[in-house]
This record gives sequence, structure tokens and C-alpha cells, in this order.
Amino acid sequence: MTTNNRWHDYVVAKAQEAQRASRPLATASTDVKDAALTAMAQALVDQTSELLEANAQDLAGAEEKGLTKAMIDRLTLTGERIEEMAGGLREVAALADPVGEVLSMWRRPNGLDVGRIRVPLGVVGIIYESRPNVTADTAGLCLKSGNAVILRGGSEAIHSNSAIAAIISAAATGAGIPTGAIQFLEETDRAVVNAMLKLDTYIDVIIPRGGEGLIRAVTEASTIPVLKHDKGLVHIYIDAEADHGMAEDIVINAKTQRPGVCNAVETLLVHDAIAPTLLPSLLKALQERSVEIRGCPTTKALGDDVVSATEEDWDTEYLDLILAVKVVASYEEALSHIERYGSRLTEAIITTNYATARRFLREVDSACVFANASTRFTDGNQFGLGAEMGVSTSKLHVRGPVGLADLTSVKYIIFGDGQVRS
Amino acid sequence: MTTNNRWHDYVVAKAQEAQRASRPLATASTDVKDAALTAMAQALVDQTSELLEANAQDLAGAEEKGLTKAMIDRLTLTGERIEEMAGGLREVAALADPVGEVLSMWRRPNGLDVGRIRVPLGVVGIIYESRPNVTADTAGLCLKSGNAVILRGGSEAIHSNSAIAAIISAAATGAGIPTGAIQFLEETDRAVVNAMLKLDTYIDVIIPRGGEGLIRAVTEASTIPVLKHDKGLVHIYIDAEADHGMAEDIVINAKTQRPGVCNAVETLLVHDAIAPTLLPSLLKALQERSVEIRGCPTTKALGDDVVSATEEDWDTEYLDLILAVKVVASYEEALSHIERYGSRLTEAIITTNYATARRFLREVDSACVFANASTRFTDGNQFGLGAEMGVSTSKLHVRGPVGLADLTSVKYIIFGDGQVRS
Repeated sequence: MTTNNRWHDYVVAKAQEAQRASRPLATASTDVKDAALTAMAQALVDQTSELLEANAQDLAGAEEKGLTKAMIDRLTLTGERIEEMAGGLREVAALADPVGEVLSMWRRPNGLDVGRIRVPLGVVGIIYESRPNVTADTAGLCLKSGNAVILRGGSEAIHSNSAIAAIISAAATGAGIPTGAIQFLEETDRAVVNAMLKLDTYIDVIIPRGGEGLIRAVTEASTIPVLKHDKGLVHIYIDAEADHGMAEDIVINAKTQRPGVCNAVETLLVHDAIAPTLLPSLLKALQERSVEIRGCPTTKALGDDVVSATEEDWDTEYLDLILAVKVVASYEEALSHIERYGSRLTEAIITTNYATARRFLREVDSACVFANASTRFTDGNQFGLGAEMGVSTSKLHVRGPVGLADLTSVKYIIFGDGQVRS
Repeated sequence: MTTNNRWHDYVVAKAQEAQRASRPLATASTDVKDAALTAMAQALVDQTSELLEANAQDLAGAEEKGLTKAMIDRLTLTGERIEEMAGGLREVAALADPVGEVLSMWRRPNGLDVGRIRVPLGVVGIIYESRPNVTADTAGLCLKSGNAVILRGGSEAIHSNSAIAAIISAAATGAGIPTGAIQFLEETDRAVVNAMLKLDTYIDVIIPRGGEGLIRAVTEASTIPVLKHDKGLVHIYIDAEADHGMAEDIVINAKTQRPGVCNAVETLLVHDAIAPTLLPSLLKALQERSVEIRGCPTTKALGDDVVSATEEDWDTEYLDLILAVKVVASYEEALSHIERYGSRLTEAIITTNYATARRFLREVDSACVFANASTRFTDGNQFGLGAEMGVSTSKLHVRGPVGLADLTSVKYIIFGDGQVRS
């Protein structure tokens, strides 16, 4: 145990407050929650100058802490970004309230009516890095779904996160949300996280948002259930029978429309029956858009300036304008490549063949499997679920985009007229 | 780490076999799975004498190991109990296959059809104690839901479990199920469990079935998600307005119909407006059925032979013919008693008041909340879900009775016509 008593007591006090608040919050009306979200949005905008001041303190320490330029960019707040945060909260207010939804109800032969309804999870713990908007975004989603939240951000953004949390928490309470529903851990000692991850009597789920290292560490230490958001090593398979134009459009979109995100394609698998007619122009089109190609020997023979792919390339999430390309002899070879190297987040097939499409959709074990569309659609908003908490690669509870409804549990309610069991 | 390398390698080999088998099993047809379940049932019956022999070996060591009479009874196999096991497998064969069910599908403005379908979890690990029938029951449920299973039973039943596993595994393979889909850990060293609980790359969920100690130990050590089955400290609250006859029938049923199970009532809360007219006869009726009453001072004054309840009584799952009884001044007092002492598995209200019933169903945070019915109905079969894997007190993934459908995950399948993201 690396937890010392001081940090343990600190986190327990916060967690107890959150749990106490979670009970009245669970039955709070949609009107009260929506009014609170709107007030939180307004408070952020109203206190823009305070937020920028707090952010300046974080930025002052950023270079010293060795943050890269990209990290500093993510950390930076501007008036526009504060408006966006507020807009996110207003969007959540506009979503339907999942709490109380009756998922199904049926009558038993003895006359009992058995129903399953959505209820809040209780207390959600969020552990995240860098971007301060996560503080407002996740607090808003938790509030709307009736959950208390405990926020633990990175030390590099401590002043910004702390200011955001204070502002939205005060606004929420002012609008009638129970005090303590939004908790923020100002202490940045690592021992605080370790202590937090053992509080399974107070916290119902932990959602880590960050890199692989963070997720691994949280999974190993936590006695609380964890909703994982792992990497996306995304594949597109172009079948022997495919429309050339559609294949080109989809691959270019999936690789270049926003290369730094988890639903961008990283490896392209091409059936060898179509490779000679398809690949030369597709590779050229990609290279014209600054994509570096790392290919198998057949790919190299079909294009110019193709780097030889190594074993490591099949295993790499580039998050960059680089694409690994492999020509395969069969559907089965593509499937086993995906099984071996895929991260099970998103894959797509491009085919005109009915049976092959059907087979791919059935056999590929990923959170999202596409036929004839860009993998970039793996996203709660694009699916029509509204704002999302991330994209889950867990198999339990929720898989794929994590929407508001996924931040709930269920309970059975049973209406009787005096029934007893015989 | 208490895991040594030898046990680690042993479990990894089993887990890899399970994972390999899980892939073709995930797309096995319902016909093949049902034929396998029927063959497994028949094989158990056909090999009754081998099973009784193996069981005799366990029974021979039972007293020496200090097993109680009740534990030895649970461990004992008979021809009739083997028939029951077989019947259980045939029942699972008759249930609808959850795999492939489309939970919902909708069209997006850009023409994409987005659907959510049920898929198997992959590999399920079961850790259980004592009763050998759990081997067949859980293997059957996992097979029907398309999951490979790794079974780890207690050392006291090792010969019986091992024989059952060998028989059903051979029968399943004979009927076309991939080899390795049913794994049994014959090695009973504790280090085997410890190693198993770290294999999150191979095993998708761990289901512990046993006492509180087992569940706690598994939760603490596991890096794999755990579906918990905790105790049931069940409450019935009799409101100020309640039908006397219905209250008496339900309480007697919930306490005496089968006192040793998790949905039997343990604490009765009675509104003080109804206590003087209801309790004297109710207490007598319970005592006539050999129920010991442990009551608060008011309860003592309203009945004969009432033992004084201590703080410990409110916190105890008796699993016996004992009932703790407390008279409360209000609905709110009942609710806060339940919040403080309840295990959040099952609670019931008995009332004729519409608003109070509605409020109780909304405010009580338990897996199953009843109005005017016996808590003994908390059961997958009674709810109409078919055979169950247990009753979950987890809030994630599944809460309440765990049926076949709860042994599945989901995936999104998306049908496009060349859509790209702009």
C-alpha cells in the first residue's frame, strides 16, 4: 500500500460528501438539472477573466514542467474555448434525461408487473489529463445523468481545473443541486489517486481519460469497476469486389480528415485481386495529401516512395499522416490480421458483395464495425447519441461511444397485489 | 505478487485455449449450441456411475477437511441430482439465443443505418465453492451465450467437478463446439486463482459465486472486471396504510418459505400508526412458524417472547428463522434505515397508498424494489428470464438476476453507401 493515512482521509471525506449528495441528486427533477447546467454555462462565461488568470498560472509553469507544444496548446484557455465549454453544458441540458426511463415492463402469469428502469450509477470518479474542458464536460454529463462526480485532473492544469470546478459547483448548488455533487481533488499527490481507487464503498465507477499508461495503472490499482477508453488501431479492409471511387473516398477521409484521433484508420488491408488496379492511384492520392505509406512488398511494387513496413508498423497507432498498407490473399487473411493486431475499437470493410459484407459485420469483434463508410463516424454525436464521455473498449456495461444513458444503471420495479411465492 | 511462474504458465495456457475457442464459438449457430447442450445433458446421465465414484472420493475426504453437515450435503451427488443437472442443461437449450439480437437500429440523416447487436463477452471465468452442479449450470449458460468458460471450483469438490467438466466438455466437442471452449482448472493451489485474476488480456469477466470472503478477495485481486453477487439484507416496510391480511401473508412468505436464501426478508420495518393493530397477531403468526423475533422496545411491548434487538441485528443477514423488527415513526425513518443497513439487493413496501408506493419504488436504491409482493420473487426464473447465473449487486453491466442476455456484450454495426465525414 502506497496510500498514507493523510491522503486517505482527505479522499474519503470528499467521497462521503459525494455519496451523500448522490442520493437526493438521483431523484432530482429534469427541470432542476437542466436549470443547473444552464447556470453553470453562464457562470463560466461570466467569470472568463478569473478563468484566464488561473489558466495563466498553469501556463507559467508549463515549460518548466517539460510540456510539449501540443500539450501546452491543449492546456491553453481562451475566451472562445470558454464559450465552447459553456456551449457543451447547454447541449447536455438539451439532451433527454435518461433517468427513470422504463426499458421494458412485462406481466407475469401470477399478475406481477416486472419493469426495468434506468437509475443513476451513484458516484462517478473521473481521472484525466491535460485539457481543462474535461472538467466541465464530464461534470455536466454526470449531473444530467443524476450522478455525483469526483474529478481528479492532472497537476499541469490544477489551477484551471480548480477554478472551473469551483465556478460550476457553486452555480449548480445555487440552482438547487445538492451541495457536494461536484467534487474536485485539489491535492495532486499521486497517493491521492491510489487512495481514491480503493474506495469501492463510495465510488461506483472510475473513468480514466488519458494515455495507455494512465489507463493501465488505474486498471491495476482499482478495486472499483473501470470503464476503459483504450487506443484505436483501426483497420479498413478493401475486398476483392469493391467500388474504386468509394474505396478511395473512404480511405482518404478515414486517414486525413483528422489523423490525430482514435477513429482514424491506421492500417489498410487490400485483397490482392483488386490491389493492382486500385492501389497505384489510391497510394498517389494519399501521398498528394502528405500521407506517408509504409507497405508490404506487394504494396511497394505498386507505388512510388513506399517505405518498407516492419512488424512494428502493424502494431502502431500512428495518430499521424502515416498509413500501413498490406495486400492480403483472402478475406480470411484480413480477418486474422485484424484479430491479431486490432484494438477492437473500429474496423470497416469496403465491398460490393452482399455475403462478404454480412460476414465481416458478424465476424469482426470490434466495438464498431462498418460496411462501406468511413471509420471516422465512430463518435457519439455522429451516431446520434448526443455528447459523449468517450469511446469504451470495455466489453462490460458499455462498448463504443459512451453516452448519457451509459452513465446509468438499472433497477427492477415490481408491482404486485399481494402475491407470495409458493 | 503471490503468483509463481509455474502456476502462471499453467493458467495462461488454459486461458489461451479458451480465447482461441471463443472466436469460432461466438458465431456458432444456435442449432449447434442447443445440440451440444442436449448431448452434455445425456452424457451426464449416461455416466452417472463414474460421477458417483468421483463424488465418493470427495466425500471420503470431506469430514477430514472439517466440512459441516450442511456443506457435505451440498457436496453430495445422487442419481436424482445428476438428473437435475441434466435437466438444467436441457432447460438452457430451450431458452432463446441472445447472440445476434438487434437491440435497436436507426437511420442517421446522412443515410447511415446504425445498429446495436448482442455479441458474446468472449471468455468468462467462474470461481465457485462447494456445489458440483455449478460446474454444469454455469458451463451451460456460458455455452448458450457463445462464451468460452474457465471453471475454478473448490478443492473439496475437485474430483466431482473435474469429472463433470470432462464429461460435458467431451460431449460439447463431439457435438461440434470448438475444442477448448470449456476449461477446468484441476490444480487447486491458491496461486492458480491469483494468476487467473490478472489475465485481463484473455479473460473478459470474472464471476465469483460464494461467500462474502471469496467475493471480497476476488474483487481486490482482480484486474479483470468482476460481476459481484453479494449478500441480501432484505427489508420489508409496512406503511401506515396497509392491508393487514396482505401484510401478514407477504411477511410470512418472505421469511419462512425458504429462509436460507438471499431474497428472504431479514428486517421488518413497521409504521407506528399501524403497529398496535398489526404487530400482535403478525408476531404470533411468525412465532407459530418457529420464527424468533428480535425487536425494538416498541415491538417488545406489542408481542410476547421478543428478544431485544441490538445494533448488530440491523446489520445481520440471518439466513435463518430469525426476524429483526423495528417500529418507525415515518416513511422517512424507514427509508434512512434501509439506506444505512440495506445491501441494496431487494426491498418491499406494503401499502394501500398510491403516492407512498410510487415514492418507495422511486427512492429506494436496490436491484429489485417491490410494492405489495413477496421479496422471494427476486429470481431470474420468477421474473421470466429463464435460468440465472446468480443475482448481481453490481451497478455496472447488470443489476439483479443475471440471465443469458447479461452474459453478452454489444457491438455497433453500421451500414453505409460510401458515407464520409465532413
